[in-house]
Amino acid sequence: MQYPLTTNAIIDYSNRVFGHKEIVSKLPDGSWHRYTYADMYKRTKQLAAALINQLNVQPGERVATFAWNHYQHLELYYGIPGAGAVCHPVNLRLSAEQIAYIINHAEDKVLFIDASVVLIFEKIAAYTPNVKKYILLNAPKDFKTSLAGAIHYEELIAKESMDFEWMPVEENDACAMCYTSGTTGEPKGALYSHRSTFLHALSAMTPNAANISAMDRVMAVSPQFHVMGWGFPFICMMAGADMIMPSMHLQPAALINIMQKEKVTIANGVPTIWLGIYEEMKKNPPKEKLALKEYIVGGSALPAGLIENFERDFGLHGVHAWGMTETSPVVTVSRLQNEHASLNYEQQIKIRAKQGILLPGVEMRVMMEDGAIAPRDGKTAGEFEVKGAWIISGYYNMNDQEHFTGDGWFKTGDVGTIDEYGYMQITDRTKDLIKSGGEWISSVALETTLMNHPKIKEAAVIAVPDDKWLERPLACIVCKEQETFSVIELQEFLCKHFSRYQIPENYLQLNEIPKTSVGKFDKKLMRKMFAEGKLKSIADIR
Amino acid sequence: MQYPLTTNAIIDYSNRVFGHKEIVSKLPDGSWHRYTYADMYKRTKQLAAALINQLNVQPGERVATFAWNHYQHLELYYGIPGAGAVCHPVNLRLSAEQIAYIINHAEDKVLFIDASVVLIFEKIAAYTPNVKKYILLNAPKDFKTSLAGAIHYEELIAKESMDFEWMPVEENDACAMCYTSGTTGEPKGALYSHRSTFLHALSAMTPNAANISAMDRVMAVSPQFHVMGWGFPFICMMAGADMIMPSMHLQPAALINIMQKEKVTIANGVPTIWLGIYEEMKKNPPKEKLALKEYIVGGSALPAGLIENFERDFGLHGVHAWGMTETSPVVTVSRLQNEHASLNYEQQIKIRAKQGILLPGVEMRVMMEDGAIAPRDGKTAGEFEVKGAWIISGYYNMNDQEHFTGDGWFKTGDVGTIDEYGYMQITDRTKDLIKSGGEWISSVALETTLMNHPKIKEAAVIAVPDDKWLERPLACIVCKEQETFSVIELQEFLCKHFSRYQIPENYLQLNEIPKTSVGKFDKKLMRKMFAEGKLKSIADIR
Ligand SMILES: Nc1ncnc2c1ncn2[C@@H]1O[C@H](COP(=O)(O)OP(=O)(O)OP(=O)(O)O)[C@@H](O)[C@H]1O
Ligand SMILES: Nc1ncnc2c1ncn2[C@@H]1O[C@H](COP(=O)(O)OP(=O)(O)OP(=O)(O)O)[C@@H](O)[C@H]1O
Ligand SMILES: [Mg+2]
Ligand SMILES: [Mg+2]
Repeated sequence: MQYPLTTNAIIDYSNRVFGHKEIVSKLPDGSWHRYTYADMYKRTKQLAAALINQLNVQPGERVATFAWNHYQHLELYYGIPGAGAVCHPVNLRLSAEQIAYIINHAEDKVLFIDASVVLIFEKIAAYTPNVKKYILLNAPKDFKTSLAGAIHYEELIAKESMDFEWMPVEENDACAMCYTSGTTGEPKGALYSHRSTFLHALSAMTPNAANISAMDRVMAVSPQFHVMGWGFPFICMMAGADMIMPSMHLQPAALINIMQKEKVTIANGVPTIWLGIYEEMKKNPPKEKLALKEYIVGGSALPAGLIENFERDFGLHGVHAWGMTETSPVVTVSRLQNEHASLNYEQQIKIRAKQGILLPGVEMRVMMEDGAIAPRDGKTAGEFEVKGAWIISGYYNMNDQEHFTGDGWFKTGDVGTIDEYGYMQITDRTKDLIKSGGEWISSVALETTLMNHPKIKEAAVIAVPDDKWLERPLACIVCKEQETFSVIELQEFLCKHFSRYQIPENYLQLNEIPKTSVGKFDKKLMRKMFAEGKLKSIADIR
Repeated sequence: MQYPLTTNAIIDYSNRVFGHKEIVSKLPDGSWHRYTYADMYKRTKQLAAALINQLNVQPGERVATFAWNHYQHLELYYGIPGAGAVCHPVNLRLSAEQIAYIINHAEDKVLFIDASVVLIFEKIAAYTPNVKKYILLNAPKDFKTSLAGAIHYEELIAKESMDFEWMPVEENDACAMCYTSGTTGEPKGALYSHRSTFLHALSAMTPNAANISAMDRVMAVSPQFHVMGWGFPFICMMAGADMIMPSMHLQPAALINIMQKEKVTIANGVPTIWLGIYEEMKKNPPKEKLALKEYIVGGSALPAGLIENFERDFGLHGVHAWGMTETSPVVTVSRLQNEHASLNYEQQIKIRAKQGILLPGVEMRVMMEDGAIAPRDGKTAGEFEVKGAWIISGYYNMNDQEHFTGDGWFKTGDVGTIDEYGYMQITDRTKDLIKSGGEWISSVALETTLMNHPKIKEAAVIAVPDDKWLERPLACIVCKEQETFSVIELQEFLCKHFSRYQIPENYLQLNEIPKTSVGKFDKKLMRKMFAEGKLKSIADIR
């Protein structure tokens, strides 16, 4: 029979089957909020009614959110599509210019904003004249703001009935949108349909992927403004998992505390988050073993060393995943298969540190420079092209030929290989490639190897101009506390894994690697800083 | 982007990502056949080409199979839809009349048939004049048959190219069909679309459901002619699980042997199968613990006692599921949730013996006799009504108002309750209900309780006419080897669980319970036998 795949179908289902499940938020002010799926459902109905009755939101219109991860933001994820509109979470860590650009480009008229970030937005509001209505989240009653006519969320929804019927939608209608995080250029808008959101969630909850069930309590660390929190608000509610939402409490110690207190079994996050958690646990080892079964990492490469360290020191199991804003995001997840049972631990780690295998519903190929498709040999590299049920086929309001092939594939800008077991491995991004004397050098391979060195906390490798070789790699290193290094020592370490021409002769020791809004190495900025002579070593390295 | 959900998408995906995975068949002649997903893919392409080029199969046409579970049957599952036609597996355990009826009703013109069941069909062929072409599976070169113009499968596909392109299909086109197993009446045809098959497989592989991954080796015991083998041929290939197919080797000892030899981690089957396996393991305990993580049971109620016995004696974990031919079939699966961790074992078993909670993509309600929807209290019973992405909205070529409500729900004919955690429990089928003096008595509850009695192997309860109460329950009992029972003893046993009026005063001891083609208690037949005075006790019971 006809059964449209919509976010309404997800929330109707989760309310009916998992109404007893819990959503726990640690709010920006540090207080805790707990309620059930069934409570959330009723309030989401009220919210959808308010969007139509009070805010006059029209079908298909984008409605912006500017907020951390918490229960009201979750209500917005379902309530805005439930009102027939498009939920548009805005990355609150971008620059003021980028935020204004995104909001204007998306033509947002209504903005739901956390009180804790109102100060940021007050400086932007003059540049986003289309935004006419502000709704305050988590604001004290007497909260003062210059945002014109701001009203309180709770007052807004209190006026409405829980019996609201979702606005009729088709499964191919848009339900959400996100902009890319701006690592390689200006953020670009990706629209998600109801259907793509439903299928992504269903496929991502399978055992080969995030493997989430009604036994789990999931801490959603990835911000809801970064590719819809990697889809976790949809995956979890489809799986009937309890959700634990940390809002702005993202410091390692705070996250560890939440995991302990709430018996979290699964959590997600970029490598930086997990690197920080590991260091914190080393310093202050938890008294009891965490309930955490798996931590799921994406957004940047998960270093093999981190997988090993976590497992050896704390028995925690890392799962590596890959995706993009343009791909909803989850496309591949790396888990072992039964074939791998006979491999030794080191070989198994090598596989788990790859970006993984495709989820059902998406397809991938590796396009070589000569226009041929690379064989699946784990060696021949090219650009990854993807298509499928949750891959966009164009950017929002942008005439773009550059990122899509004639036969409908999306060009990811990521470069790497696929092996005979279907595991993809990223060696670089097209924009970060280093071509030295006609040979490609993988910055990602150098980085992940360097990060396995006992003295090194983080390493980012960029291309710098060279008279003889045109480009050479420059390694920027952040050492663990109290440590420093010598060039010889690192070169000897790299020798075991790389050919001579691939090994950098240039090293800098930095206090930290510049990062983007979602915690990726900001190589665009680093190259610019280098060109302007602003990338300088904090130590004298030989 | 547009990405049609089709069986072609499943097999393209599984070939690309899981080409190295294994399909192992124990063929009807007892020999073993092994090959990979990649091998299977190439032959399926050849098969699809042959259907069009040699057999002249037209888009949408039904193509019948009459075969056990094995690799060629798997090829047919994908090859027939790949040629744009509809794969129609025919239940080879039905009566000759029913088989002829089904084949004529479906208008099958081409039949793929296992050599081992050709004798059965030779007696039917005269009554199915539309079938013009027979293709023999697993037939020796010199195989003799009266089936007109029969050709060999291997010769058929050998002539074709592996480069065949799947015929273009829309996701709402039909790809398969099955008839109901005829427990309550004549078999009725259910058509499955590409989309429904894809969504069913994806939802059924999730951790709340069958929980199948690329770590698993799955033995598909449920016949492919019974509701498409419960969808396992699609679920497994989407999950990248190795498949182990036992064809006709379904005796307990044979299945145990296959599980041991092939290190099976998951298997499915009706309760009768698992009852038999349990008894066999008690008699001949396996020397090594099986690799089996879970056995998945549906088609009839899984008795709590069997779950307990398997777990206590052999550490094997049973999972209970419910579904129907009309529902593809999987609608609910019973697993514990994290809330249940604090319950004691007995309470947990009670939940696991229920039929379980809904999969995402389907909906359910309990309709009471007065037309109101029953509350989810685990007590108020009514008929289950379902709708969703893989529930049919009408029978094939049948004008039927009886089974569908005005607002699009399918009336299952199953009766029972849903509890506050969303678990459904079946107490009866509408056609088997016992109404005694105005009160309903649940035959299923009596049966599953009786089957927990140490002396009893199987128990089926039917309604028999009664002068005073109109209907009374009659309990038909099969004892374990060498055992017998007394009426008093069983009544005392039942006393602990039932009210007085619910406890039968009439008992028969039988050698076996008559079963349907797929191993369910054939209560229709039992009532008929009773009416004709043919249901007689083998012992003198007081
Ligand atoms: N597991 C991973 N390993 C390596 N790189 C990853 C992984 N997951 C994601 N990435 C990188 O992140 C990119 C997607 O990130 P995102 O969608 O947040 O925007 P961005 O590409 O960083 O920004 P923009 O497209 O605006 O430049 C991928 O293209 C890839 O380069
Ligand atoms: N786990 C289960 N517990 C109890 N009964 C079950 C279970 N699973 C399936 N059933 C029964 O099996 C029925 C579906 O069986 P199937 O589709 O094979 O055809 P049938 O109903 O037996 O035959 P027909 O519809 O032709 O009479 C359900 O309606 C239900 O009564
Ligand atoms: Mg990008
Ligand atoms: Mg039926």
